[in-house]
Amino acid sequence: MQKASSPQSRVFKLPIRVYYEDTDAGGVVYYASYLRFAERAKTEMIRVATSREGALWTENDPLFVVRHLEVDYKAPARLDDSLTVTTQILKIGGASLDLLQNVMRGEDVLVAIKLTLVCTTHDGKVLRLPPDWRQTFARLVIA
Amino acid sequence: MQKASSPQSRVFKLPIRVYYEDTDAGGVVYYASYLRFAERAKTEMIRVATSREGALWTENDPLFVVRHLEVDYKAPARLDDSLTVTTQILKIGGASLDLLQNVMRGEDVLVAIKLTLVCTTHDGKVLRLPPDWRQTFARLVIA
Amino acid sequence: MQKASSPQSRVFKLPIRVYYEDTDAGGVVYYASYLRFAERAKTEMIRVATSREGALWTENDPLFVVRHLEVDYKAPARLDDSLTVTTQILKIGGASLDLLQNVMRGEDVLVAIKLTLVCTTHDGKVLRLPPDWRQTFARLVIA
Amino acid sequence: MQKASSPQSRVFKLPIRVYYEDTDAGGVVYYASYLRFAERAKTEMIRVATSREGALWTENDPLFVVRHLEVDYKAPARLDDSLTVTTQILKIGGASLDLLQNVMRGEDVLVAIKLTLVCTTHDGKVLRLPPDWRQTFARLVIA
Repeated sequence: MQKASSPQSRVFKLPIRVYYEDTDAGGVVYYASYLRFAERAKTEMIRVATSREGALWTENDPLFVVRHLEVDYKAPARLDDSLTVTTQILKIGGASLDLLQNVMRGEDVLVAIKLTLVCTTHDGKVLRLPPDWRQTFARLVIA
Repeated sequence: MQKASSPQSRVFKLPIRVYYEDTDAGGVVYYASYLRFAERAKTEMIRVATSREGALWTENDPLFVVRHLEVDYKAPARLDDSLTVTTQILKIGGASLDLLQNVMRGEDVLVAIKLTLVCTTHDGKVLRLPPDWRQTFARLVIA
Repeated sequence: MQKASSPQSRVFKLPIRVYYEDTDAGGVVYYASYLRFAERAKTEMIRVATSREGALWTENDPLFVVRHLEVDYKAPARLDDSLTVTTQILKIGGASLDLLQNVMRGEDVLVAIKLTLVCTTHDGKVLRLPPDWRQTFARLVIA
Repeated sequence: MQKASSPQSRVFKLPIRVYYEDTDAGGVVYYASYLRFAERAKTEMIRVATSREGALWTENDPLFVVRHLEVDYKAPARLDDSLTVTTQILKIGGASLDLLQNVMRGEDVLVAIKLTLVCTTHDGKVLRLPPDWRQTFARLVIA
């Protein structure tokens, strides 16, 4: 993973290996498993973006809850595939983030995921993005 | 579950109980778990629609693969909730079905899922809907 | 499900249908999925045993945490199988329950699970079984 | 991960990060999730042991199927924990491998898993360990 300022470097990349747990009897990755991959990638992006080495999601941190999701399944991933999940911030709203996540095998986008995260308290109340988080994410937006 | 001809009865309903396996440390149902619920409901709808009591998905059956998905997360479900997943056929294409699935607690829609299924062979080739399946599904379309 | 006094009726039975989510690319049920089935069955046994219709696991209830587990995998279950999980109480300790759970297809035991549950508070402290729970479970022990 | 000849180095180590997908509403890692971690570790051990960089589990490879499992749950792992799964070969049988896998946080063993794998064909028939696989694993046994 990386954290930098050129457009290219604003794309966070997380490698994912496909194990039996991720697949189904169709011989391919189960359709909900891609959301698990995406969540790992989102978490690691936030970890790197916020320069945290320790635990995320302490009681004082805002939560980022998925409000809306669109998924295009273009081609299946298979057992033992070595994948990459890319994560880009498309837009920062008052209390939300729009992300694009691609599950890729080499140069091929297998699954494309657009999602809107809403920033909330641990009680579920919508929360404006804290200024320091906003600044951090602002540096990462794909112009 | 039911199978009938009035608009109301064209909505298939599957009860779902929420267990620990479905939840996460946020205390609510994990966002990908709703797709597991939806797939159970879709499977049971097809089982009822096609009047099969035995195994689905034999080698001679077409497969229905998810091609596109949109999910609105409106409110969270929680451990031990008693939910209902409704499934309606919105549109029948040459080789596809558009479905609307709502995950409900009582009268409240917690999560709304729109998805496009594509009919394929077991090798992954797109397949026109077999005429008998088309007829079966046609009777179930919400006008 | 049933709740009664003859030895036969002390075995709780929960039907389970196998969906894609439960399987893996080997074409069979993934080895950890049986533990999900077992947990559903355990939960429903406790629900019936304690005559609760509403939510289990409120803040005032004890928790039953798995402390030890032994699993024999005898034969695989497959997609769309219609299974039954049987649950029997083998022994009641001061703060523990020993259970035997069998995942069955017809008369065949596919997977046998022995587990020890420990009764704890929501903070994780071991708790003697409350007397009313103990009485309830005592009626269900297979002599 | 490592592959070497001293006893210490015969223990394969795989780092695992805990994500929301692995946890449940109890605030801890769901009891079946540890088996997913163990399977990832087992797979990577076999990958390293057999010096394969590409895909495992081709049609010509034997499969290693879990036949028996014992799990001791000593302490819970939590969201965002950074864990290590250690994998050791305890014994090599004619067609089986006995493994010990520990899920650790720092120096603490949270969950200990003993399992017996049986070598099978892709049709499920028990298969004697191929000589080259036997040799490979023999070098890794903890004396």
